[in-house]
Amino acid sequence: MSEFETGLPSVRLIQSYIKDKKQVEIKLLTGDLLAGRIFWQDNSCICLLDPSETQIMISRPAIAYVKPNG
Amino acid sequence: MSEFETGLPSVRLIQSYIKDKKQVEIKLLTGDLLAGRIFWQDNSCICLLDPSETQIMISRPAIAYVKPNG
Amino acid sequence: MSEFETGLPSVRLIQSYIKDKKQVEIKLLTGDLLAGRIFWQDNSCICLLDPSETQIMISRPAIAYVKPNG
Amino acid sequence: MSEFETGLPSVRLIQSYIKDKKQVEIKLLTGDLLAGRIFWQDNSCICLLDPSETQIMISRPAIAYVKPNG
Amino acid sequence: MSEFETGLPSVRLIQSYIKDKKQVEIKLLTGDLLAGRIFWQDNSCICLLDPSETQIMISRPAIAYVKPNG
Amino acid sequence: MSEFETGLPSVRLIQSYIKDKKQVEIKLLTGDLLAGRIFWQDNSCICLLDPSETQIMISRPAIAYVKPNG
Repeated sequence: MSEFETGLPSVRLIQSYIKDKKQVEIKLLTGDLLAGRIFWQDNSCICLLDPSETQIMISRPAIAYVKPNG
Repeated sequence: MSEFETGLPSVRLIQSYIKDKKQVEIKLLTGDLLAGRIFWQDNSCICLLDPSETQIMISRPAIAYVKPNG
Repeated sequence: MSEFETGLPSVRLIQSYIKDKKQVEIKLLTGDLLAGRIFWQDNSCICLLDPSETQIMISRPAIAYVKPNG
Repeated sequence: MSEFETGLPSVRLIQSYIKDKKQVEIKLLTGDLLAGRIFWQDNSCICLLDPSETQIMISRPAIAYVKPNG
Repeated sequence: MSEFETGLPSVRLIQSYIKDKKQVEIKLLTGDLLAGRIFWQDNSCICLLDPSETQIMISRPAIAYVKPNG
Repeated sequence: MSEFETGLPSVRLIQSYIKDKKQVEIKLLTGDLLAGRIFWQDNSCICLLDPSETQIMISRPAIAYVKPNG
């Protein structure tokens, strides 16, 4: 995503998850399934706070999908 | 897909699946095969509603193929 | 492939397979080997008709190679 | 990341890890989990000093995630 | 490779393999190791003639490396 | 890397390995670990001379990391 298009539905959906402190699961191309809440996003990465509040800075190209958790 | 080219056959086909609430299968580079109907698309993601109506926001670069299901 | 360069040898070869309804095999980065004939192409996807005439819309970045089948 | 956008949260977070000589783990799409501290970053790579102070120049597109280590 | 930069060392090396009908091996991200001689190249694909003279159109992003064979 | 930015730390580090005929290891997304010395680089590829002085032309997007070897 070269330009960060804040108007995109996908960016807005992540923004709503951040605002609502929504629990999510993020599946990576490595097969890892990371759980936690999204702390921030920019055009290169999505930062996830895992259950121990550790910041996991995930590269967008490595993400397969994001879905709400519970 | 930097610019969202709504005129592309591939974008139009997805749009028709959305309009017709078509059941589809989406194969990911992880090997996951996700089933459901497509809720929306933008130039970065395709959002799939799975059988439990959960929104799975799939990154386009992680998609291998999309095909109708049944 | 940002701009769809119809003059490229690779695009022209696919176009000839479409015109000649040529049977092909498409190997994906997932390891899948899909067989059928190519229905259309655009700068994001190649649409393959499998033996049951189902449209499989394949993302170009997920393609490893395309070769004639028989 | 074509242009190196130093203002991005993701770039600033890495910059803080460099300044603080923070121990991190970097998960790669190969499944490798590399540990050490980040030495420098540019728009193509992140250079990690492993425990034996060897410079491991990691391609950004190969990174799944970066997280603090302990 | 958005623009086809014919002056690049990598493009020129492939061009020399084409001219000299050099036998090569091409390793793909799928793990496939394809052998044959390169027939043509453009900015999206490299076309390999396998031992049975079948045209295998390989996507450049799927290539790990190219090396002479024997 | 669309434009070849020779001023980048990552490009300069590779250039120093070339000048010093440094032995390196290059880990690929396929899991291959290639050893040798870097012969040249351009914006698409890095060419490695393996122990038998064979030129292995490696696609940059397929590289996970480069590190000195011994």
